Amino acid sequence: MTLELVSANRSFDGWHKQYSHQSSSLDCKMRFAIFLPPQAETQSVPVLYWLSGLTCSDENFMQKAGAQRLAATLGLAIVAMDTSPRGEGVADDPDGAWDFGLGAGFYLNATEAPWSKHYRMYDYVVKELPKLIEANFPVSSKRSIAGHSMGGHGALTIALKNPGRYASVSAFSPICNPSQSPWGQKAFGNYLGKDRESWREYDSCELIGRCADPIPMLVDQGDADSFLETELMPQRLQNAADSADFPLNLRMQPGYDHSYYFIASFIDEHLEFHHHWLTRG
Amino acid sequence: MTLELVSANRSFDGWHKQYSHQSSSLDCKMRFAIFLPPQAETQSVPVLYWLSGLTCSDENFMQKAGAQRLAATLGLAIVAMDTSPRGEGVADDPDGAWDFGLGAGFYLNATEAPWSKHYRMYDYVVKELPKLIEANFPVSSKRSIAGHSMGGHGALTIALKNPGRYASVSAFSPICNPSQSPWGQKAFGNYLGKDRESWREYDSCELIGRCADPIPMLVDQGDADSFLETELMPQRLQNAADSADFPLNLRMQPGYDHSYYFIASFIDEHLEFHHHWLTRG
Repeated sequence: MTLELVSANRSFDGWHKQYSHQSSSLDCKMRFAIFLPPQAETQSVPVLYWLSGLTCSDENFMQKAGAQRLAATLGLAIVAMDTSPRGEGVADDPDGAWDFGLGAGFYLNATEAPWSKHYRMYDYVVKELPKLIEANFPVSSKRSIAGHSMGGHGALTIALKNPGRYASVSAFSPICNPSQSPWGQKAFGNYLGKDRESWREYDSCELIGRCADPIPMLVDQGDADSFLETELMPQRLQNAADSADFPLNLRMQPGYDHSYYFIASFIDEHLEFHHHWLTRG
Repeated sequence: MTLELVSANRSFDGWHKQYSHQSSSLDCKMRFAIFLPPQAETQSVPVLYWLSGLTCSDENFMQKAGAQRLAATLGLAIVAMDTSPRGEGVADDPDGAWDFGLGAGFYLNATEAPWSKHYRMYDYVVKELPKLIEANFPVSSKRSIAGHSMGGHGALTIALKNPGRYASVSAFSPICNPSQSPWGQKAFGNYLGKDRESWREYDSCELIGRCADPIPMLVDQGDADSFLETELMPQRLQNAADSADFPLNLRMQPGYDHSYYFIASFIDEHLEFHHHWLTRG
């Protein structure tokens, strides 16, 4: 696997770098970004994987979240990937909608044509990308995972499906019950087909009840988020967690919306949370 | 003067808001953004004016600099404006170049046709906008000014030309000697005409020698900035300051480039610097 350096910026005495590579999971060229804190010059550092929301690339989080300052202090690497396969020959929404297809991979493995050829973001995020990161950068195999909106859904489902693989998981404004939300129903119906049984494998409200080994989980949700009631539905995640005695820490944040201004306001608390679990014992 | 609210986002328990208004200086509709820290709910807070670089709008700094976290702690409002007049009828570079015309107002008052009709960013930033801000928001008349690249040039020249109006000035990667740089020569030649005497009124290397009342001045410059030698030339500003016994604090930052990753890395030190001078005595 060959990595091509796309850009490099000094950042808080560490480095922000973008790379492209041919992805075997997705069968296309992909770009990701990594923030390496100054500590990575002399030691292996743990990694937080960040999964972005609809329409995003690796750049939104790295440019807008303001995470590098504290990550550089804590000695935490951050990896942000694209949100779908890209490039010529990758199927897209026939109407070019922003909530499905390109920029909207939903962090699952599609089973239906034409999506199943490239849309395998689950395998990319869980297996291929960490292998690539751990082989090419001064990082340990300690991992945590976090995301926003569609990426919050991705982080929660991936953590719940892979006990032991991540030290902790957090999300901002996640799509908590995609089987019941318009965004999720459009994506799952196309990527996974009409049989809703298969949807349960990618729905946090289902998975949280089955998780035998609870992972530390922090969720922040703004109460002025315009997608709160129709798409995100955190109360359903809370109910499912309560039923399963799962120790979810869901915090409603008054006045905050769905934007990166919200993420930036609380990212430090998420980094502290992950750092605690990544460096414990 | 009527302000129209364009957007509002809760940010670090304060507010990021965008407004549009009809500008009398620029004779067009303009948009600006203001960050109001939580302290502004109960008291008047000082204001840092931020001037952005070529191609930017009010959004670049607010989205990418990560300034709100510390500004919310210090109790500092931040105002970011657009970088040129905009809209139908506003002249642009005939070739649509990014370094002149729209997005490249250079914070001066143009004297040459067709630019003189709208391109009066100097009056807008120095007079109209502060008047508007101080009439409509819970801010004091304590002001500081800062900027990046073309906006660094703007901040330095405006502070040097208006003794007593700003408590402090700082810049990232400013165009220090625009009369001698390709960007500056293109802008000044068009906006101000061929007589280079008029250019001296907007060149920090000229103005710093004439300033009878030195203002606290901090400049950060990355030594891996690709524009360093051809466009920015901070050593000339240092030489001019030395000749005039002007107490410039110019810091070369090793490995840093021209991007917002650089600005984010040092913005806290600039905010602390301005806060010190804004709240002193």
